Amino acid sequence: FGGALQRRVSSRRLEIQQNDFALGGQKHRILSGSVSYFRVLPEQWRDRLEKLKALGCNAAEVYVPWNLHEPQPGQFVFEGRCDLLSFLSICQELELDVLLRPGPYICAEWDLGGLPWWLLTGPDPVPLRSSDKDFLTAVKRWWDELLPKLEAFLSAQGGPIIAIQVENEYGYWGTDKDYLESLRQMLLNQFGSDCPLLFTSDGTFWPDLQQNGGLDSMLRTANFGSDPQQRLQELRSAQPQGPLCNMEFWIGWFDAWGALTGKSFRDPSDVAQTLHNTLDAGASVNFFVFHGGTSFGFCGPGGNLSSVGLYEPQVTSYDYGGLLDEAGEVTEKYLQCRKVLANFLQKPDLLEKTFPTARRLPESPPLELESTLSLEDALPALTSDGATCIKSAVPLPAEQVGLGYGYIMYRAQVPSTNKLPLTFGKDSIRDFASIMSGGRVLGTIYRNDSGPGCREFELPEQGCQLEVLVEMMGRVNFGPALLTERKGLVGPGSVQLGTPFTGPMRAVLGWEILPLPMEEQDLARIPWGMDVSMGKRTSRWNRGPRFYRFALHVQQPADRFLALDGFNKGFACINGFNLGRYWKVGPQRSLYIPGPLLRRGRNEIIIFDIDSPSCGTKDAPPAPRVVSKPIWSSGMLPEGAKEAAASVSSFFKSWTS
Amino acid sequence: FGGALQRRVSSRRLEIQQNDFALGGQKHRILSGSVSYFRVLPEQWRDRLEKLKALGCNAAEVYVPWNLHEPQPGQFVFEGRCDLLSFLSICQELELDVLLRPGPYICAEWDLGGLPWWLLTGPDPVPLRSSDKDFLTAVKRWWDELLPKLEAFLSAQGGPIIAIQVENEYGYWGTDKDYLESLRQMLLNQFGSDCPLLFTSDGTFWPDLQQNGGLDSMLRTANFGSDPQQRLQELRSAQPQGPLCNMEFWIGWFDAWGALTGKSFRDPSDVAQTLHNTLDAGASVNFFVFHGGTSFGFCGPGGNLSSVGLYEPQVTSYDYGGLLDEAGEVTEKYLQCRKVLANFLQKPDLLEKTFPTARRLPESPPLELESTLSLEDALPALTSDGATCIKSAVPLPAEQVGLGYGYIMYRAQVPSTNKLPLTFGKDSIRDFASIMSGGRVLGTIYRNDSGPGCREFELPEQGCQLEVLVEMMGRVNFGPALLTERKGLVGPGSVQLGTPFTGPMRAVLGWEILPLPMEEQDLARIPWGMDVSMGKRTSRWNRGPRFYRFALHVQQPADRFLALDGFNKGFACINGFNLGRYWKVGPQRSLYIPGPLLRRGRNEIIIFDIDSPSCGTKDAPPAPRVVSKPIWSSGMLPEGAKEAAASVSSFFKSWTS
Repeated sequence: FGGALQRRVSSRRLEIQQNDFALGGQKHRILSGSVSYFRVLPEQWRDRLEKLKALGCNAAEVYVPWNLHEPQPGQFVFEGRCDLLSFLSICQELELDVLLRPGPYICAEWDLGGLPWWLLTGPDPVPLRSSDKDFLTAVKRWWDELLPKLEAFLSAQGGPIIAIQVENEYGYWGTDKDYLESLRQMLLNQFGSDCPLLFTSDGTFWPDLQQNGGLDSMLRTANFGSDPQQRLQELRSAQPQGPLCNMEFWIGWFDAWGALTGKSFRDPSDVAQTLHNTLDAGASVNFFVFHGGTSFGFCGPGGNLSSVGLYEPQVTSYDYGGLLDEAGEVTEKYLQCRKVLANFLQKPDLLEKTFPTARRLPESPPLELESTLSLEDALPALTSDGATCIKSAVPLPAEQVGLGYGYIMYRAQVPSTNKLPLTFGKDSIRDFASIMSGGRVLGTIYRNDSGPGCREFELPEQGCQLEVLVEMMGRVNFGPALLTERKGLVGPGSVQLGTPFTGPMRAVLGWEILPLPMEEQDLARIPWGMDVSMGKRTSRWNRGPRFYRFALHVQQPADRFLALDGFNKGFACINGFNLGRYWKVGPQRSLYIPGPLLRRGRNEIIIFDIDSPSCGTKDAPPAPRVVSKPIWSSGMLPEGAKEAAASVSSFFKSWTS
Repeated sequence: FGGALQRRVSSRRLEIQQNDFALGGQKHRILSGSVSYFRVLPEQWRDRLEKLKALGCNAAEVYVPWNLHEPQPGQFVFEGRCDLLSFLSICQELELDVLLRPGPYICAEWDLGGLPWWLLTGPDPVPLRSSDKDFLTAVKRWWDELLPKLEAFLSAQGGPIIAIQVENEYGYWGTDKDYLESLRQMLLNQFGSDCPLLFTSDGTFWPDLQQNGGLDSMLRTANFGSDPQQRLQELRSAQPQGPLCNMEFWIGWFDAWGALTGKSFRDPSDVAQTLHNTLDAGASVNFFVFHGGTSFGFCGPGGNLSSVGLYEPQVTSYDYGGLLDEAGEVTEKYLQCRKVLANFLQKPDLLEKTFPTARRLPESPPLELESTLSLEDALPALTSDGATCIKSAVPLPAEQVGLGYGYIMYRAQVPSTNKLPLTFGKDSIRDFASIMSGGRVLGTIYRNDSGPGCREFELPEQGCQLEVLVEMMGRVNFGPALLTERKGLVGPGSVQLGTPFTGPMRAVLGWEILPLPMEEQDLARIPWGMDVSMGKRTSRWNRGPRFYRFALHVQQPADRFLALDGFNKGFACINGFNLGRYWKVGPQRSLYIPGPLLRRGRNEIIIFDIDSPSCGTKDAPPAPRVVSKPIWSSGMLPEGAKEAAASVSSFFKSWTS
């Protein structure tokens, strides 16, 4: 990309002129769309940005996820999906301004809101998002790497970045103005007189949000999806002067696993009408999102913790109901908003551009199973890279053994149980576990499971080797729960013997802990040959964690979706690239396959299912297939959710009666 | 004491002969009583032990509280109440054998079960009572100091120690046999062939307790209060051969603040009958307790966490319904048990000894207030010893700022609240707090308080300086809650703005933390002169944390009790010695004054009340008085307890329906 980069002749600055923006001295309205470069393959960036331009927008809003760029302390990544600089170059080429949101916290329905998992290794409370010295030191190390790279892209240098957001919805977090000021100073110190306009963005619904979320030295902007008149008036109360801007015009919403309502939906004409009203009210606007993309891999989707403590993990697709869908195609919502913008801009020629249907893979029958292997059989190979098996008296959270994402196995010898059940402490499972003995499944348990008995398992009375395989899902990305969002088996008393009726719970002690990051190089070590007969359906297997390998033959690489028929919960890779998690609870039932991942001929699909069904010799094993459209079902309640729902109801009753 | 120590002519060993004990080769029945040397003033030890001897007992059972002996890592105390060696010398002189229980965990209704607070400073989960390397290293440092001192007192060396207990009721804790074996090895390595008989002690009610709580290489003993036949049979199932021993014959029970039932009580004749049946069944026995004493000071009483999470802190008195009462006087229970023992031992002359009433202080009218000072006024002097005021973005638990016991003050600037209430997170208060602004009380909150509104406080809308003074009460001493028993403000989101209806809670950030250990040298710095007019009732004061000074004039030092009329919650010192905590919720309403603390003439009493009532010029200020008997009321529910009780009820309903 770099070669194509063209500097504008002179620098342009975004400034505030009373209640308006001015750009390069001209009164200016920001018409922007959020594009998640890290959720889109680099080969597709230009296509998405060209469609943004074709909508009539003049800017792209861009989050920067710290955790993806600094996966281990001091180890930085700026390649592939992390090649922010190439992305900015394309913006520049297309003459799209950039509103950069480098966090450090970004929310974004992204694991821990973009904060690195390794911030969670110390004693509680962890002072994230505050003026704590250690936290600011970590931010500074990151920004010292990031900010110098951005200098050439600042508008003062002829680049596209016209504004930078400090933190993200900080008003929802805390009262630490010193923290906001420290971040502001870091930017000013780095960029000096080239520093673009600095702003904050917050809700307006409760007056403290704008008040505590910003500083008078930075522009305050609002985030809302509806009622622009009301919301902009609230923003105006918090900030008597300055341009009005909706920095997050929520035109859709994200989706959570198990959501009973199915995929979130918003009427395109309502979006268009709200856009019209916002522009009418004189405000700038940023579509959130213009294009979401996909939360590929493990460091991807975040989660929410409801006010009654229910975990709501986000699905892999970040379609969001954006103006472009997950596959980057123009939607009805796009067309309706373009009409509003064409009218607003008095550019009727915007409406002339058409978007022919992109090439697509043909649909396929269920793919033929090439090979399958239980985790138990694969384990020696998966842990053969010299990674230590950690011995610990107590089960340690993944972060404490240096693991950020993926799976983690805990093994312990349980002595005679004397009929006491094995019991998992409240909120100890992060987030889904298969409980096994000698590779045989005793049951599964999900983080939200509660109510009599559902966290208890019967073990052989004479004791056994206990194995607990835990799938780590997305870390909560919003609200105070960030501070305790460790993964694996967490908290004291996570694994115990007993019930409330047998005295204090007895701790199961003496553990072996095996980190299973399941990254591309790990999966490459799976000794498929061993179990290959199973692939020919001459064998059968028990319920439990299991790998599958399939071949997908392709004549012409193109986009499509992979339906996960018969699978329960896990992730799928294609040619070594992790497409993300799937879960039968829905509502998402298929995974997006970006065309750039495919090659002509044989493509390898590997699926790991933590709770794979048992399979007799005559059963058809689970098999994925290529489908032309994404499959969204209504959600299914995970086990235990009914009890959880009852507790929600009684909680609110106690507050309202 | 040392000079009076007389070595017995030859060494005596306690051994196992089939189903009996043998001592010095003779078949032997252990008749022992538990005496807490650290809960009794050294001047009174001989009196208590003589009474144990006079009962017909041949042994004293002795716990060793690690936390009192090693208050800071590597800093050891063996003086005063910690002068274990002098205590053992008296046992030896009186020809009382000793069953030593050096832990490291002792339960004993003692702060954190005797484990030092400084073990709780790392990240969770803290691997207490396990074979974790760091934990065992800490144990070894302590035992390397303790065990060599004991060598001269081993029975193999002619000393009184005939047996040593490893850990305490470990069956209730966990499954880590390596841990028990490590402790056993430490003792064997230290004492070699002189090592006394090693044993463990556990309940028998659930079969796993004896199984997982002991090793086959050590004698198992049982703890129970009733049904000796049944319990000894359970012990026999767990251990087919060996002498039977009730290592904790619970003849009474400990008391908790707020217990609605008032002081615990057990019928003396039931105790005597159970003793008779136990001896009849051929078992050895240890009265638990023979004499409890008093949990003086801050590193004293422990607490319990009920199965539904209610904190039940123990009172200052450790009377326990022992054979001697808190003041060391013989009880009806003593006399009835002596009858059983005289009969069993065929020593009718035991019954001849009488115990004339000890000298007592005369009762007094309410003492005259000499001076009083609010904590606000005393604070500069209290913190003038160079102790740092710690600055932290988030409120840190006391352990993280190096404070083990006492009080801790947290101060923060709260910006405009925009009508959001100040809210304390669930289980964030350890254990009682006064919420203030500019020294003015907004309210108080207790650890158990729950239910709508009772953890919320209204602040001035324009913001204020917030002060949260927290009283740390006894750490839980039993069950898995040990692992999280940090004090002060704990957990993430401990202090927030908002309600469940105003979105995620906003953290109050940016704190100053002042440790207030309130030890003797701290109280000596109180500038009483400043506020002396108040002592003359010419002034008045507001509700809030406050110091009081009184004089007690004594002609002849002797024992008595101090009634705390009009005070709410705090502690009382006499001549610099901390008598322990008081709380108006009862059931304990007076504090024991041991005679040895007093001197002829003026004795100084200092009282600190965290929630002292307001006082007008015409009100009589609160004033203590000397009373002849301890005052025990029925308990009073602390605020919020009613809601907690309702949650208990619904919890059990969910388990039983």
